[in-house]
Amino acid sequence: MYIPTFGDVVAAHERIRPYIHRTPVLTSSFLNGLTGAELFFKCENFQKAAAFKARGASNAVFGLTDAQAAKGVATHSSGNHGLCLSYAAGRRGIPCTVVMPRTAPQAKKDAVKGYGGRVVECEPSTSSREAVFAEVVAETGAEFVHPYNDPRVIAGQATCSRELSEQVEGLDAVVAPIGGGGMVSGTCLTLSNVSPKVRIYAAEPKQADDAARSFRAGRIIADDAPETVADGLKVPLKDLTWHFVQRHVTDILTAEEDEIVEAMKLIWKRMKIVMEPSSAVPLATILKNPEVFRGKRVGVIVTGGNVDLDKLPWM
Amino acid sequence: MYIPTFGDVVAAHERIRPYIHRTPVLTSSFLNGLTGAELFFKCENFQKAAAFKARGASNAVFGLTDAQAAKGVATHSSGNHGLCLSYAAGRRGIPCTVVMPRTAPQAKKDAVKGYGGRVVECEPSTSSREAVFAEVVAETGAEFVHPYNDPRVIAGQATCSRELSEQVEGLDAVVAPIGGGGMVSGTCLTLSNVSPKVRIYAAEPKQADDAARSFRAGRIIADDAPETVADGLKVPLKDLTWHFVQRHVTDILTAEEDEIVEAMKLIWKRMKIVMEPSSAVPLATILKNPEVFRGKRVGVIVTGGNVDLDKLPWM
Repeated sequence: MYIPTFGDVVAAHERIRPYIHRTPVLTSSFLNGLTGAELFFKCENFQKAAAFKARGASNAVFGLTDAQAAKGVATHSSGNHGLCLSYAAGRRGIPCTVVMPRTAPQAKKDAVKGYGGRVVECEPSTSSREAVFAEVVAETGAEFVHPYNDPRVIAGQATCSRELSEQVEGLDAVVAPIGGGGMVSGTCLTLSNVSPKVRIYAAEPKQADDAARSFRAGRIIADDAPETVADGLKVPLKDLTWHFVQRHVTDILTAEEDEIVEAMKLIWKRMKIVMEPSSAVPLATILKNPEVFRGKRVGVIVTGGNVDLDKLPWM
Repeated sequence: MYIPTFGDVVAAHERIRPYIHRTPVLTSSFLNGLTGAELFFKCENFQKAAAFKARGASNAVFGLTDAQAAKGVATHSSGNHGLCLSYAAGRRGIPCTVVMPRTAPQAKKDAVKGYGGRVVECEPSTSSREAVFAEVVAETGAEFVHPYNDPRVIAGQATCSRELSEQVEGLDAVVAPIGGGGMVSGTCLTLSNVSPKVRIYAAEPKQADDAARSFRAGRIIADDAPETVADGLKVPLKDLTWHFVQRHVTDILTAEEDEIVEAMKLIWKRMKIVMEPSSAVPLATILKNPEVFRGKRVGVIVTGGNVDLDKLPWM
């Protein structure tokens, strides 16, 4: 297992700069008043393909040799990683295959195809996904880019908090959603190098709290297919992300489903930005734990904006 | 009738700067590809109170003498102007009364109260509104700030395109929604002074096309209570806005209801911003008249973001 270094982050940032946005940081005086904290929202919903995963996917794709690249890339993904890998492959002009559960939102399948990727459907279980994916790789010889347990991907995601720490001075804490732990690992990788005093909190749905339980148990605990409105956060930690989480995360906070939906609606209503349920989990945990954040300068990672506008969770 | 000058715009900008945001200009490579134009969205949905009308309202409120201000301000408004006048009055710490149709969205009534304003309801007709409003002014002695037919308001709205012309070089055209014509008049006032070659297009719902018919007829034609999803654009032109529209507008383009809703959804989906139906009318008319805008650098005024998230028009 190769552990990416901050040197890899700097290299990734140079490599992907032409293909990603340096996303803006937004603030809301209303939400500051409500939480008693100063919140700085790093808006990856405005990122290419509307998700931070464009960073890691671009780093993986543009780091391939021409020989590797010719066979294309492949992944399995419940959503944004597949979309973003398809985006990055499209920018390089190489094939991309994404294995997706047939139950994934149609908008996400269409978006993968919109960027030129091929969608191969599997059943919504880990076993089906792995079997179908093995077939795809055997057929194509494509390079597997894991959604998060991959040093290239983590180094790419780490460029997000590198920008945040350039954009906002004197942060006391950063809160990021945790599913498989790619964004949180990237955040750990950057901040432990450039601002080691900043506390890193991971935010997780209570109904998919395997990372929080892993954190307390001191070992990875994985659930099979938990249910939550924050559909980007269902996947479990893996060895590489666990490496960063257990070393650098201060705490993992959880929020109930209704709290996540309420936080999401609050951000839409007050900040006038479209973001997905997973991105609302940090604010939900901040509202639930005001004593942790009051008086602090807090970075909040808004991870993505891919949501089905015909099926909003408060309808 | 006092016609505001560009000197009034400069003075307004100085006066209101502490109370408004210099809003960002966003772009979308997808929408550029779709329209064949380069579109620059001036995002007043991120403005204070989520509407450009915070500019004009702030200019009116902060231009009052202390003696005038002590009696407060009053207006009638189907939505954003009332909200923004309440915001500005709250910032100055003076009373504000807003006469609103009882049929106005509850979210807008709550928002007026949220900023400290008082809501007085009338029936959804011009005659009821005028009668109720006369009572309010007789009772309070408040200064009437008309939603658009007021030189202070127009000079304030004009600061929006002043910022836009500083933020984007070489614009060929600007498209703004037209209801009563406050934003369009402000756009005319600024651009006729700083960039007289920029063409100004007004965008209007076909179902409330009184401004387009006025423009062709050469005189104000007013409809009583037209119906459109773009509920900020139902009101007619008045003498002061007509002055600017007839002198400086190149054309008034219209869009059907379904085209407006489609354009709105497209912006939410692709740009990840929350904006109201009125703000989608410009893109709807650009999509409908591609030959007018193809190859051009086009400013698009996103007028506001106040929408009831429980009643989105595509549901």
